[in-house]
Amino acid sequence: MKRIEVIQNVLEANDTIASRNRQLLDRHKVFVINIMSAPGAGKTSLILQTLTRLKGKLDIAVIEGDVASTVDAEKVQGRAKAVVQINTGNMPESCSLMAAMIESALKDMPLDDIDVVLIENVGNLICPAEFTLGEHKRVVISSLPEGDDKPIKYPLIFADADAVIINKMDLLPHVDFNIAAFRRSVTGLNPKVEVFQLSTKTGQGLEGWCSWLLEQVRTNALKR
Amino acid sequence: MKRIEVIQNVLEANDTIASRNRQLLDRHKVFVINIMSAPGAGKTSLILQTLTRLKGKLDIAVIEGDVASTVDAEKVQGRAKAVVQINTGNMPESCSLMAAMIESALKDMPLDDIDVVLIENVGNLICPAEFTLGEHKRVVISSLPEGDDKPIKYPLIFADADAVIINKMDLLPHVDFNIAAFRRSVTGLNPKVEVFQLSTKTGQGLEGWCSWLLEQVRTNALKR
Repeated sequence: MKRIEVIQNVLEANDTIASRNRQLLDRHKVFVINIMSAPGAGKTSLILQTLTRLKGKLDIAVIEGDVASTVDAEKVQGRAKAVVQINTGNMPESCSLMAAMIESALKDMPLDDIDVVLIENVGNLICPAEFTLGEHKRVVISSLPEGDDKPIKYPLIFADADAVIINKMDLLPHVDFNIAAFRRSVTGLNPKVEVFQLSTKTGQGLEGWCSWLLEQVRTNALKR
Repeated sequence: MKRIEVIQNVLEANDTIASRNRQLLDRHKVFVINIMSAPGAGKTSLILQTLTRLKGKLDIAVIEGDVASTVDAEKVQGRAKAVVQINTGNMPESCSLMAAMIESALKDMPLDDIDVVLIENVGNLICPAEFTLGEHKRVVISSLPEGDDKPIKYPLIFADADAVIINKMDLLPHVDFNIAAFRRSVTGLNPKVEVFQLSTKTGQGLEGWCSWLLEQVRTNALKR
């Protein structure tokens, strides 16, 4: 079917650019994390908490992906080493960041002064699973109010993640969410995945996430 | 650009099938609502509450759209006049229901015995905005934990909605959500939209939504 072929070509072209991004990043010893989630699960809040807690330990830049608006980039501005906002606009590119967008954003960044780039993908549990960006690690955030069935409904993004964050733990008394069932679904899809439980609002559990991130950078792309 | 043309063709082909769906529905006096939201905002819960509250008043069928799994169809089974599960599977179809999927689902339904079809779209604020299904009304659910900036970040889906539901009002004391700011953003994009505040968990505010739905059916497609 012609349409399917075209989409296949888009995915292959994306993979090629993603490999090129990865080579560039490795040459400059920049470690990149692709952060994905449904809308409102806490990607920006996780980035803000991470910037605050790792200040002085790592130089972190941020790429903000959104269909529209610059509200997230404005929140991060001043706290990160560099910030680039990407607005994905209309279909078909709107539903995920794509490697070409990241290639373009990296051109605006002082890569030799950066240890880590945190990429905030577009809020979506479907399309971002299909488009690699050249990242070293993929992180998915799920938040308690979304319900514990998300790994069953959106398996691909959870199956490919290096880490899964259960966010909004502060809401546990107020919502129906079975943490054990969620963890079982995730590890069923992806036995080696790291799972963190935290609240980007209260700060609870953030130290575990930050230690993991530091460790990843140290073993993968130590600059200093 | 060739790729863009192909996607344009996909959207046009979708619109043609959507018109055909609409003609079929109007011939059988079946009123259809397309319910869209981010993952976990409460589409299934809204459908379950609506089925319970309008039992005996309307014969309601449900089409459940998910990338994977049948968990939602199982919840609805036995309470609706008919239930069809659609699994959208892999890209590019995965990120939204499309008119051809609805055409196929309607073939399995006893349309002369049905007043209303509630379509639960795939959990996503981007792709479903682009694909019409033949529905009479489009409803977007936003839930408090997602934050009040969603209309700014995903404007198209809010701009095209006939009704916007603010769900999980029971969590208001526990999250940061400015209802006035959210309503301003929505009506800025879409001045005529109906906005409902409710909780599908506690039932608070459901009567307003059900009255609106009954009124829409009465004025559009009264069967009896």
